[in-house]
Amino acid sequence: MAVAHQGKIVLYSYWRSSCSWRVRIALNLKEIPYDIKPVSLIKAGGEHHSNEYREINPMEQLPALHIDGCTLVESLSIMQYLEETRLQRPLLPSDVVKRAKVREICEVIVSGIQPLQNLSVLIHVGEEKKDAWAKHWITRGFRAVEKLLGSSAGKYCAGDEITLADCCLVPQVFNARRFHVDLRPFPIILRIDRDLERHPAFVAAHPSNQPDCPPDTK
Amino acid sequence: MAVAHQGKIVLYSYWRSSCSWRVRIALNLKEIPYDIKPVSLIKAGGEHHSNEYREINPMEQLPALHIDGCTLVESLSIMQYLEETRLQRPLLPSDVVKRAKVREICEVIVSGIQPLQNLSVLIHVGEEKKDAWAKHWITRGFRAVEKLLGSSAGKYCAGDEITLADCCLVPQVFNARRFHVDLRPFPIILRIDRDLERHPAFVAAHPSNQPDCPPDTK
Repeated sequence: MAVAHQGKIVLYSYWRSSCSWRVRIALNLKEIPYDIKPVSLIKAGGEHHSNEYREINPMEQLPALHIDGCTLVESLSIMQYLEETRLQRPLLPSDVVKRAKVREICEVIVSGIQPLQNLSVLIHVGEEKKDAWAKHWITRGFRAVEKLLGSSAGKYCAGDEITLADCCLVPQVFNARRFHVDLRPFPIILRIDRDLERHPAFVAAHPSNQPDCPPDTK
Repeated sequence: MAVAHQGKIVLYSYWRSSCSWRVRIALNLKEIPYDIKPVSLIKAGGEHHSNEYREINPMEQLPALHIDGCTLVESLSIMQYLEETRLQRPLLPSDVVKRAKVREICEVIVSGIQPLQNLSVLIHVGEEKKDAWAKHWITRGFRAVEKLLGSSAGKYCAGDEITLADCCLVPQVFNARRFHVDLRPFPIILRIDRDLERHPAFVAAHPSNQPDCPPDTK
């Protein structure tokens, strides 16, 4: 893992990290060229816990984005920075209430679901209980997301344009499937996920299309 | 618990909920008048789990804000709505990188710490293990916050103006004390918390000054 150089946009990413994936989608949607520096959450006890990476992201989590001469962490903060500095292909509506509704869905996923089922927490929960634990919190969160989408969704999470909410939703659906969550009670989530699975920006951001995806899982 | 009426700004709040507290601080800093509808996290197994409140916030969490004819949930999304619609007393810097740094600190707290130590998760962790669990995740998060503050802080979390990061930090320090986290390794966090503890907007938002604070804990 070499440290990024100024000038180039570099995303510290792990193929299966849903938080890295959110940012990959946003970068792709805005057609911002970037390089990927893979940081393995598995190798050598996790490269994200190395002294070198801790200097980049003190939370020892992915992603981090090197851009405009600085290093940014926390996926939702990074995506809002992209939104405020790269105005092409807006990922937040212009209407203030709709913006709030998009951020609301983002936060339910980013703070209400993902942190409870991420790797470091599951290690603490223990091998025996971890699947039931992850399933419980994802199901609780998706129940809320489905309800919110009932009033906000059009073709996508908030109306007919792709927003930050969609960037957060798709990776979370992938995680839900990994933990065998029953998704049948969430028809709107399933429909949006299906509609986006062939979108080029989402395809390019998918774990299976990352340079660090192990060949045997592709 | 009666449902809020259009026109008035109403915050569904619980005195000790750190997420409600963040929004109370932001409302106070911007001098936005609001009424409080207390929702007890304790009474009758938790009023936030009632059918009535689930219609207001499908995540069954506090806070919710009734404002401008709609109901918003998720504290960080609410605070950003206030920031975008009530321009007085800005709580985000105008510089885009500084805005990202503020949101970064917010997210570390809002998604990296609080969700792991909130009531519903601690119930699942179990009585015996819950204190050690909360202490672990708060300490991990504060280590990252302290490091981020090392480069962003002035008098407050991001420079010399109070921002959304301060609205998130102060309630989290209170929670850290509840769980007996050793705060000595976090001198910047402690200094900022101390500086803000007498600020009128923070005093008025404090749990002990809420209408639903039990008299014997004041």
